[in-house]
Amino acid sequence: MTLKLFELVGTDAERPFSPFCWRTRMALAHKGLGAESIPWCFTEKAAIAPHKSEKVPVLLDGETAVADSWAIAAYLEDSYPDRPSLFGGAGGRAMARMLNWWGDVTVVGGMFPLIVADIPGHLKPVDAAYFRQSREARFGKPLEEVTANRDKAVEGFRKSLDPMRLTLKTQNFLGGDAPNYADYIVFGAFQWARVVSPFKLLSQDDPVHAWREKLLDAFDGMARKSPGYAV
Amino acid sequence: MTLKLFELVGTDAERPFSPFCWRTRMALAHKGLGAESIPWCFTEKAAIAPHKSEKVPVLLDGETAVADSWAIAAYLEDSYPDRPSLFGGAGGRAMARMLNWWGDVTVVGGMFPLIVADIPGHLKPVDAAYFRQSREARFGKPLEEVTANRDKAVEGFRKSLDPMRLTLKTQNFLGGDAPNYADYIVFGAFQWARVVSPFKLLSQDDPVHAWREKLLDAFDGMARKSPGYAV
Repeated sequence: MTLKLFELVGTDAERPFSPFCWRTRMALAHKGLGAESIPWCFTEKAAIAPHKSEKVPVLLDGETAVADSWAIAAYLEDSYPDRPSLFGGAGGRAMARMLNWWGDVTVVGGMFPLIVADIPGHLKPVDAAYFRQSREARFGKPLEEVTANRDKAVEGFRKSLDPMRLTLKTQNFLGGDAPNYADYIVFGAFQWARVVSPFKLLSQDDPVHAWREKLLDAFDGMARKSPGYAV
Repeated sequence: MTLKLFELVGTDAERPFSPFCWRTRMALAHKGLGAESIPWCFTEKAAIAPHKSEKVPVLLDGETAVADSWAIAAYLEDSYPDRPSLFGGAGGRAMARMLNWWGDVTVVGGMFPLIVADIPGHLKPVDAAYFRQSREARFGKPLEEVTANRDKAVEGFRKSLDPMRLTLKTQNFLGGDAPNYADYIVFGAFQWARVVSPFKLLSQDDPVHAWREKLLDAFDGMARKSPGYAV
């Protein structure tokens, strides 16, 4: 039975982005599971509607469809218990739920206004129009105005990573000696940014930068091989 | 062998505060371990110097002295493995390290400027003078100026708890169905505030407020029975 994964792409079907899809890609690799990629664009709502979702990732495992990256991680952990654990036990699973929200609010939410204007250029015209219209409505201004101050605004984003940075002083990964889903939660966001934007979110001497390098190398360089900018 | 715990107090030896000491108190209760309390004041550096620490908590377990709340939690988990787990496995232990930093930076660090001016009133004159001098140097202004705007500033603090608040939408505790050390990390900060300040850090309808109520009731109401303000 081949797994299939609906993944967000733009003009280049070989260049998946979305922080959430990358969480799932890394989780699948951690479990040693392959998945056939089904490229999906923002305006292709009809393609995933049968799976009761309006967003990706959507994982198809035989007759089962699972939407939402957190639900997929939990599904993979429960359905493939003999594979390497994503959470390292019940405590890790519960705490990862909070790290997942931290990743959404602080990391994805913090990055978005820094890179959002770089995204439409990677999209097909119909998707670019949809993206610009919906996101400009959310921000209340043109995307270029949102990112205009990013050289300064990035300082606040970097500061917001302090809890993670301090953690990496005494352990290699958020998951401990080796990466687990806690790492993929945050890495997914950085990989998303790397795929769509040349903007340097991290300084070279940041321990978070060194951590990101290790995850780019994980699974035989899977994430690094995916097209992206040098960041 | 009776455990002993150096705990921070002010004029009232029955009113321990410090977010870090309360993490340890809750962790000991979780493990079903009693500890004899040794009240300790800010300026009593000499009393804990033999245990190679300048701060509390310091736990004494026979010949072993352990300083720092995180080190104590790890020590208790390793030394009392047959008691209820604080972390729920290796994954939880690794992720709790990050939640501990989040607790320090976001929760303790976020609360401190909201309640700091209420603390000297609970201290003996010599400790109050030390506290005021050292903390005013850190903030660069009188403590009363630090807290002056707190009715407005508390909004940012409440917002910073979003990752926790969102987590509590789908599980009862940060540790899952029941509390574990992830919860005590954050609760320690709220209990510290409750002991020293009447300021209402949370609104009544906040899910974090309901969570705090449950932890005040935990272990036969241990934290609620400790003297504090109605918050």
